[in-house]
Amino acid sequence: MVLIEELRNRWTKLRTLLQQQGVKGAIYTAPTNLYWLCGRVVSGYFYIDTDGHTACFIRRPVGLDDPLYCYIRKPEDILSILLDRGWALPTSLALETQEIGVALYQRLAALGDFDLLADGTAIIRSARMVKSPYEIEQFRISAAKHTYIYRQIPAIYREGMRDFELSAELVRVMLQEGSLGLFRIFGNSMECFMGSILAGDNAGAPSAYDFALGGTGLSDSLPVGENGTLLTPGMAVMVDYAGNYTPYATDMSRVFSVGKLSDEAYRAHEVSLDIHRMFEQSAKPGVSCEYLYSQSLDIAQQAGYGDCFMGGIQKAGFVGHGIGLEINELPVLAPRITQPLEQGMVVALEPKFVIPAVGAVGNEDSYLVTADGVERLTLAPQEIINLRG
Amino acid sequence: MVLIEELRNRWTKLRTLLQQQGVKGAIYTAPTNLYWLCGRVVSGYFYIDTDGHTACFIRRPVGLDDPLYCYIRKPEDILSILLDRGWALPTSLALETQEIGVALYQRLAALGDFDLLADGTAIIRSARMVKSPYEIEQFRISAAKHTYIYRQIPAIYREGMRDFELSAELVRVMLQEGSLGLFRIFGNSMECFMGSILAGDNAGAPSAYDFALGGTGLSDSLPVGENGTLLTPGMAVMVDYAGNYTPYATDMSRVFSVGKLSDEAYRAHEVSLDIHRMFEQSAKPGVSCEYLYSQSLDIAQQAGYGDCFMGGIQKAGFVGHGIGLEINELPVLAPRITQPLEQGMVVALEPKFVIPAVGAVGNEDSYLVTADGVERLTLAPQEIINLRG
Repeated sequence: MVLIEELRNRWTKLRTLLQQQGVKGAIYTAPTNLYWLCGRVVSGYFYIDTDGHTACFIRRPVGLDDPLYCYIRKPEDILSILLDRGWALPTSLALETQEIGVALYQRLAALGDFDLLADGTAIIRSARMVKSPYEIEQFRISAAKHTYIYRQIPAIYREGMRDFELSAELVRVMLQEGSLGLFRIFGNSMECFMGSILAGDNAGAPSAYDFALGGTGLSDSLPVGENGTLLTPGMAVMVDYAGNYTPYATDMSRVFSVGKLSDEAYRAHEVSLDIHRMFEQSAKPGVSCEYLYSQSLDIAQQAGYGDCFMGGIQKAGFVGHGIGLEINELPVLAPRITQPLEQGMVVALEPKFVIPAVGAVGNEDSYLVTADGVERLTLAPQEIINLRG
Repeated sequence: MVLIEELRNRWTKLRTLLQQQGVKGAIYTAPTNLYWLCGRVVSGYFYIDTDGHTACFIRRPVGLDDPLYCYIRKPEDILSILLDRGWALPTSLALETQEIGVALYQRLAALGDFDLLADGTAIIRSARMVKSPYEIEQFRISAAKHTYIYRQIPAIYREGMRDFELSAELVRVMLQEGSLGLFRIFGNSMECFMGSILAGDNAGAPSAYDFALGGTGLSDSLPVGENGTLLTPGMAVMVDYAGNYTPYATDMSRVFSVGKLSDEAYRAHEVSLDIHRMFEQSAKPGVSCEYLYSQSLDIAQQAGYGDCFMGGIQKAGFVGHGIGLEINELPVLAPRITQPLEQGMVVALEPKFVIPAVGAVGNEDSYLVTADGVERLTLAPQEIINLRG
């Protein structure tokens, strides 16, 4: 349970950002935002204004007796309740521009005659970008389980498996250990099951989605991840499943091999580790995302692996991303992102290389930005582990 | 792979609906709609007009050489390409009012000076409501695997399990059999992992979501499904996982018991089977959804189980729903839904009862609407199966 002090701190942070944007109030209704604001997902509308008021107007579940919640039948009821309470309707309002459809957006925008409708999505994503001590503790719990489970992968592997059969065993262990299952991801065009195991050339398949690597998937209806590849000698097997053992999911990828890989694959994996070392030395509050991206790209190019960095024919345009309630939070470690790191951010760094006829190599780790550097949270062994070893 | 003839038939159906609404063109971009329109998920925009033109303007994946696809960098590029091709910009446009955010909606709406912006979500949901022979064949494949896997549940149960441990074993078997994993659901405020196992009083917990039954979940961040309940004697265990072995998912719930249940639980389960029998006798093209709902409620009430029909303190307002690429398609079997059944619809009927201190009973089955009746697709045994039997 999220304590009320934690929620009050979040509301204060959100109010500060609203004020900076010259916005007087906001309404949030997407499940992930409601969880961050209320400490639980409800079917309803969270209202906040810069006069110090907060309320959550809900339809479901019935029976909550916390004074934060006020039952309504339809969003239009919000207006009369605000007036009943003597709360002045704000003159400007932030609404979720990306999570909700235009029909609901227009209904909420019609609650008043607002001078300004602001981008509530951008504002709350910015508020959620820097994590609290409570949230960081949740990441630590996820990271410990994530690491524990990745260590079991050699034991669940069996000769002659296909990629999705290894995933089935991994998912079983994850769920036994309390994985929440659902892979929360931001953006209407992003979707994935719980992560992916990319084996061999499936790792380099051009993707419909904006992941670091894609995979063709088992169906054209969900073209991401495992595609039925038989795990055969000389193949790299990249495991990239979320660590969603608390609402705050860590992100980690590790590389396993079926027997020995090509020398080129091991060298490229070392380049990925070099990039992680650069990050551990350079990343700290004040350092920009674009700098960390360009340093990563430089290391890859100088080692002669620029062509296979972050994809094959199709490449991802980033080397890392914030994580949290969603797997793709802010900031993004990418060109032209001038956002500096701040203490309390949690980011996943995933310098990956696609080696033809072998597969993907390179690790992904989740890092906490501390007062003067970064701390790696995901502590599984960093070397390529031979599944036949 | 979806054949081009199948896609052309879908486009024709969509054009007919657009014409009926007086709309000249449409753009779709949500993954599920793109799959239905193109036979694959891409990152892009599907354009269709009533002059007979179709094109899919895409960013990813690179390398598709089908003439349907045209690569663009940003949605604004669509306009110049239409003009280059000599296609007149339609005077009215349908856009997804529920799947996309207002920011993208406004960008697409700004492509032209349209007389009318129509609700593309409602139109395509209506088009997808009646399934083609190809789609029905996909359901049959899903249904057969769904049934096969539910039959294995007694074998994967072990004494002393908690609900989520049974789920972990079930999910493993599902993934081994090729489940696509992702549970596709319509609506910004709906989310679920792959289904749920509701044991004992967790079945009656008021839910934040609009499911038939909810469950409190393992975390306030995802309050649906398993909550860690230990499976103990006298408890009903309702298994309600999706049958997503093809893009077209069947929906089926079955009840298992830990030892013997109360007589009341068995009686209520029989009432659910009575409702299914009524449905198999009454449902056919031309019969309205509201009629089938009211008949179901009547049977529950006349048997003396109205109070625990479709929930406990909080009740679901429907007894069934369409299924397809998403688990909650049209039509909905609910009050005031005058929509008649049509041949080719596929609906899940789920008359369920919550018995205090026991759990949920009642089956859910997926039915195809045929020329003169309905055909049950999900063929697992209908009785309550004793896991200790």
